[in-house]
Amino acid sequence: MKQENQNQNSFGMIGLGTMGSNLLQNIADHGYSCAGYDNSAEKVNALNALDSENIQGFSNLKEFTDSLKSPKIVMMLVPAGEIVDNVIDELLAVLDKGDIIIDGGNSHYTDTERRYLELEGKGLHFVGMGVSGGEEGARRGPSMMPGGDKEAYEAIKPVLEKIAAQVNGEPTVAFMGNRSAGHFVKMVHNGIEYAIMQLISESYEIMKRGLQMENDQIHEVYKKWNQGRLKSYLLEITTDIFAFKNEGEEGLLLDNIRDEAKAKGTGKWTSQGAMDLHLPTPVIDISVSMRDLSSLKNLRVQASKIYPDLTEMHYGKNVNDYCDQLEEAFYFAMVSAYAQGMHLLYQANIEFKYDLKLDLIAKIWRGGCIIRSEFLEDIYAAFNKDPELQHLLLDKTVAGNLIQSIPSARTIVSDAAIHGISTPAFSAALTYFDNFRSESMPTNLIQAQRDYFGSHTYELKAKEGVFHTKWIMENIKQ
Amino acid sequence: MKQENQNQNSFGMIGLGTMGSNLLQNIADHGYSCAGYDNSAEKVNALNALDSENIQGFSNLKEFTDSLKSPKIVMMLVPAGEIVDNVIDELLAVLDKGDIIIDGGNSHYTDTERRYLELEGKGLHFVGMGVSGGEEGARRGPSMMPGGDKEAYEAIKPVLEKIAAQVNGEPTVAFMGNRSAGHFVKMVHNGIEYAIMQLISESYEIMKRGLQMENDQIHEVYKKWNQGRLKSYLLEITTDIFAFKNEGEEGLLLDNIRDEAKAKGTGKWTSQGAMDLHLPTPVIDISVSMRDLSSLKNLRVQASKIYPDLTEMHYGKNVNDYCDQLEEAFYFAMVSAYAQGMHLLYQANIEFKYDLKLDLIAKIWRGGCIIRSEFLEDIYAAFNKDPELQHLLLDKTVAGNLIQSIPSARTIVSDAAIHGISTPAFSAALTYFDNFRSESMPTNLIQAQRDYFGSHTYELKAKEGVFHTKWIMENIKQ
Repeated sequence: MKQENQNQNSFGMIGLGTMGSNLLQNIADHGYSCAGYDNSAEKVNALNALDSENIQGFSNLKEFTDSLKSPKIVMMLVPAGEIVDNVIDELLAVLDKGDIIIDGGNSHYTDTERRYLELEGKGLHFVGMGVSGGEEGARRGPSMMPGGDKEAYEAIKPVLEKIAAQVNGEPTVAFMGNRSAGHFVKMVHNGIEYAIMQLISESYEIMKRGLQMENDQIHEVYKKWNQGRLKSYLLEITTDIFAFKNEGEEGLLLDNIRDEAKAKGTGKWTSQGAMDLHLPTPVIDISVSMRDLSSLKNLRVQASKIYPDLTEMHYGKNVNDYCDQLEEAFYFAMVSAYAQGMHLLYQANIEFKYDLKLDLIAKIWRGGCIIRSEFLEDIYAAFNKDPELQHLLLDKTVAGNLIQSIPSARTIVSDAAIHGISTPAFSAALTYFDNFRSESMPTNLIQAQRDYFGSHTYELKAKEGVFHTKWIMENIKQ
Repeated sequence: MKQENQNQNSFGMIGLGTMGSNLLQNIADHGYSCAGYDNSAEKVNALNALDSENIQGFSNLKEFTDSLKSPKIVMMLVPAGEIVDNVIDELLAVLDKGDIIIDGGNSHYTDTERRYLELEGKGLHFVGMGVSGGEEGARRGPSMMPGGDKEAYEAIKPVLEKIAAQVNGEPTVAFMGNRSAGHFVKMVHNGIEYAIMQLISESYEIMKRGLQMENDQIHEVYKKWNQGRLKSYLLEITTDIFAFKNEGEEGLLLDNIRDEAKAKGTGKWTSQGAMDLHLPTPVIDISVSMRDLSSLKNLRVQASKIYPDLTEMHYGKNVNDYCDQLEEAFYFAMVSAYAQGMHLLYQANIEFKYDLKLDLIAKIWRGGCIIRSEFLEDIYAAFNKDPELQHLLLDKTVAGNLIQSIPSARTIVSDAAIHGISTPAFSAALTYFDNFRSESMPTNLIQAQRDYFGSHTYELKAKEGVFHTKWIMENIKQ
């Protein structure tokens, strides 16, 4: 641990949990002198115990900030919510006008919006920044989504570009947009993450229960998928998981893990935020509710006794051929998940005037983050070619590939329904698509019903304006 | 219009729109002297123009409240949101301690929670009451869901029980529970309403596009359904809609109505609230997002040109036989929609300590409200028999009937997927069921993934506690 002296550290980190500590080490590795603060002495000692000449741990906030060069750069990596507000309050006492506060946690975008405006009023620069990549990413190169104060971003840009993951020699960090743009983009990233994880788990269910495949066979399938157009970090770790045994233990660790999924809430925020924008993201929504259903274990156990399998779950199909169809269906549903997320960003950009660049977002997602994948190249290309593109499924190249996979998507969803295998996200991707591509939906009936019982009025195809009909009285007349 | 004199009106209504005016006339019909107030002179004049000896319209709030007996009973039927707070502020200036304020609008339960506590602190009684039945219901007999101040409810009970719809000689109104219970129950009522309307529209789509049936044939199907176990207000008005022609117009009015559905937000609130409680309501969620998708007409028109029908939509099935299967699938999905709504009420009751009685809720929903249906008798019976029942699908009688309908639900969902007909709510009902009845879900994989990339830990089947594995390093070892 290097000797303490005043005003010479370049970067300060508050919150020395795994993410904070790893990110700080990442920064120090790139030659920046760093200061770390945590109210847990244990964590501070652990940081100092690293004995890095570029890292200094503090248990006193004032000493921590005093050790920083001006303008002071302080990043928070603390749990989202009240704690962030408390830390900001403490910082206001020890920081000066012109200093920079970065919130690198998963804060809700509405909180970031509020904090940005409050701190702007106090003359401090605030950057709400999404950080993705997990602890490995933080240590070796994350994807970062900063938003808010552009001037402050320019000041921290050199550090961020060095510590970010690199794709084709370019860093996976860029200024996302105004105010809470960074945290909104990160929230949508996580929503897409929920959806793709749900899709993988459904493909696992089909292979395990529908095709009655062994774990090593499933491992081979994911391995193969991850060598093609589905190549992605999530399939890569899934492949690992299907090969992972604990020393001296029977079978895969996976088989010993409980099926009650936990969640930190960013997926929920995505669905709730999308609903507020009246922007449909059903594949994300169902992924959120299926995690919730999974945690109702006691209920499912009771139900399993009342509703035994009424169908032959075993598909009895040729495994290799069927897994090829499953790959196409997965591609179809994965594209739908990304498309719904990008569509949400498109709408949020209009609603919140973020000044987002959708191609830039896809570009920095190509490395470092959890949803990095081969397909993000196609998304980047689509929005780069047409910055006005409203929906990914309207891109000719994407559409061309997607069309090929539709028949398999229909087969997978249809077979699962017949055999009693639950594929909510695959199904939602398909039903979303079949309405999305449908010039007319049956919702004219819903409009008629709403006007009938609530006089909510309806619109006509042939005439502008809103109209109301006294359905009941007219019917009596008939 | 009767002569004005002080302190003798029994009931006051603020907001003389269709609902307010109709409800006031309903109350007046039962012999109560009523006062109405609105800041629109036009609406006040319209009320006085009714020339009812029991109704008096006011343009001045003070004169309006002065005309009421003490304790004064004032009900608001104004648009939800800020307006409610503004009216309450105005009322605080003219009401006394012990007076009663009823919010009969569709306020968000969190607003009602806040207002209840604020007014309690000021010594006023506040009742947040859901009112369902549309304008006809308001005039002839609505279903009402009051919650909040029990003492105040006892004071208004005689009026409410007289104006409510009657089922088997019992009024469709009852005290729901504490604080915001009334508005929460009404919100869930509307969520179920969204789901059933979506299911009806999907059955219409299957009959129209899949079976290529004519409107008059579809009319006959709904008419038949409404004479059996599916008997409900929503199928009743749907039957009417499929017979409704405007004089001198070609075809049904329905065919001339645009397919862009509007929404007032209560369905969205239900889904968002359910997600906050980690309670899965996918059939409601998808119904909300499909209304949003329907309003993206311009997008759908563009997509329809890129993605032409790639399948033969015509099922080519025997229409009568298939409609019998469709009836069974509808029954299956409808049960699921109600079950998810009741489950949400069960969870909210635990979370918010509302002291709800689920059987009582089903009981008052049997008449007057939009989701009134034959099936509510089964729901009432289930929760009446077992007040501790956690989920409707665990009731033996419900399960016995549901099991019969499962094969048809599988057929309908499977055929729609193959033929490119979108049935998101039918599909969500089935996939929800197939996970609900499944002792094990594939979410053990999601837990493994979360621990792999985020060290979020996992639980083991065999051992209590939470565990973390260094997946990567171990894998390198392999």
